[in-house]
Amino acid sequence: MKLFRFGAHEQEKPGVLTADEKMLDVSAFGEDYNEKFFASDGTSRLSEWLATHEGTCPQVPEKTRLGSCVARPSKIICIGLNYAKHAAESGAQPPAEPVVFFKATSALCGPNDQVVIPKNSVKTDWEVELAVVISQRASYVEESEAMKYVAGYALHNDYSEREFQLERGGQWVKGKSNDTFAPVGPYFVTADEVPDPHNLRLWLSLNGKTLQDSSTADMIFYIPKLISYLSHFMTLLPGDIISTGTPEGVGLGMKPPMYLKPGDVVELGIEGLGTQRQEAIAWEAR
Amino acid sequence: MKLFRFGAHEQEKPGVLTADEKMLDVSAFGEDYNEKFFASDGTSRLSEWLATHEGTCPQVPEKTRLGSCVARPSKIICIGLNYAKHAAESGAQPPAEPVVFFKATSALCGPNDQVVIPKNSVKTDWEVELAVVISQRASYVEESEAMKYVAGYALHNDYSEREFQLERGGQWVKGKSNDTFAPVGPYFVTADEVPDPHNLRLWLSLNGKTLQDSSTADMIFYIPKLISYLSHFMTLLPGDIISTGTPEGVGLGMKPPMYLKPGDVVELGIEGLGTQRQEAIAWEAR
Repeated sequence: MKLFRFGAHEQEKPGVLTADEKMLDVSAFGEDYNEKFFASDGTSRLSEWLATHEGTCPQVPEKTRLGSCVARPSKIICIGLNYAKHAAESGAQPPAEPVVFFKATSALCGPNDQVVIPKNSVKTDWEVELAVVISQRASYVEESEAMKYVAGYALHNDYSEREFQLERGGQWVKGKSNDTFAPVGPYFVTADEVPDPHNLRLWLSLNGKTLQDSSTADMIFYIPKLISYLSHFMTLLPGDIISTGTPEGVGLGMKPPMYLKPGDVVELGIEGLGTQRQEAIAWEAR
Repeated sequence: MKLFRFGAHEQEKPGVLTADEKMLDVSAFGEDYNEKFFASDGTSRLSEWLATHEGTCPQVPEKTRLGSCVARPSKIICIGLNYAKHAAESGAQPPAEPVVFFKATSALCGPNDQVVIPKNSVKTDWEVELAVVISQRASYVEESEAMKYVAGYALHNDYSEREFQLERGGQWVKGKSNDTFAPVGPYFVTADEVPDPHNLRLWLSLNGKTLQDSSTADMIFYIPKLISYLSHFMTLLPGDIISTGTPEGVGLGMKPPMYLKPGDVVELGIEGLGTQRQEAIAWEAR
């Protein structure tokens, strides 16, 4: 099942992408794709509801804005340096255990929204990532049980301001949290439709030139390890997003480094999870 | 105005502490103290509502559990090393600009809940802090305007697992986010009742012995600076919590360092914002 959200920012309505690629407005189901939805096995309930109501659901007009495919969660947890070649291009050793940081959930936006280069930013960078959405409360979960806590997957561009992240004292969160720094979507794909999340091609291009092109097979720490590990440091809640890290090819790793300027176009995708397209704009033009 | 929340964890109801210290159940007002409440000037609306309904509000029975005085926000943003002597005891220089990290909002709990020492934790530590609650969406706010974005204040114990925070690779969030690591309350005090938040005594004792005893006057970065600074890296939302850092006297700074063990009792307070009391328990006993 593929779920999306559409309409104005922070007023999104729920939609379903059918097997024959119709975009259905399922507002009549009466729920958003949020913590409560995932906690109560919303995708199964929605699937049952659709079986009798699909015919009455209006189609979403073409060119309608898409929002994040899941509603604002309690946490966006990101994994740093989870691909060996990206660690190397960042000047870091592959980590001995997962590197964890948070992204402000206020950064969440739609897959094709413009990315706003923050005021005084000169180092806004891209990171294509596989995002995992949690299905149920997870605390002290064993690796062998961890995949039971996965609701599904989505594409995420973990935008990062490298000066804010690395040169402004202390923790990375400063460079990860500006508005529009977390486009998630276009759609959420339920876990049953992604038989092997550790074998997906993921790629990103800037102005048509491919800069990232790798496979989730190259992750250092796989999803069961990440869920189990994180659940020992915090309780994961239904709808929470875990972004599993980016492969090599970010601006920081170029020689010389290269960052976004207004007018640049970033496109990215993950096999089976759709594509995104963001045009960069200056803060003054937002 | 002083607001509190009471009842079972994650099912709390809203209450008001009156000027004559009566604890009123204001469930009939029909709102929780959450993002929507703060975004719509909830405290003014509640105050008006109370003027005609106070007589019909039941009193909250004594010994009722208190929850966090505000509902789970979008973010708990913490400021590190914001008192010079605490920076020194942590082996750090006073920072040139604010050190920022996030705490998982799933760590939020009531002021007198037991603090759970996480599984395999040997370095669970305490940090009395002044928490600021945001009243309205804040993005690129000037310092001179920043205090207009403060809804009020509360007491917060920023529990920290030092091994998880400092010795497990990367970012601090791992040591800040376990369940029960963010007791907030007993009550939220509206800004009008705290004429000078930069002149409040704050203290913490362990098993009756005072270990932290300082004043918010000793903060390196004051609240207007913090709000303005943060709002350049992320959008602050109504109800968001900014915890402004802890003074010297944490376990990490003792010679030798000293951490919580089951049965320890932590008490803390801030002038005008009430007190908290947490008994430490082992993870197995939770």
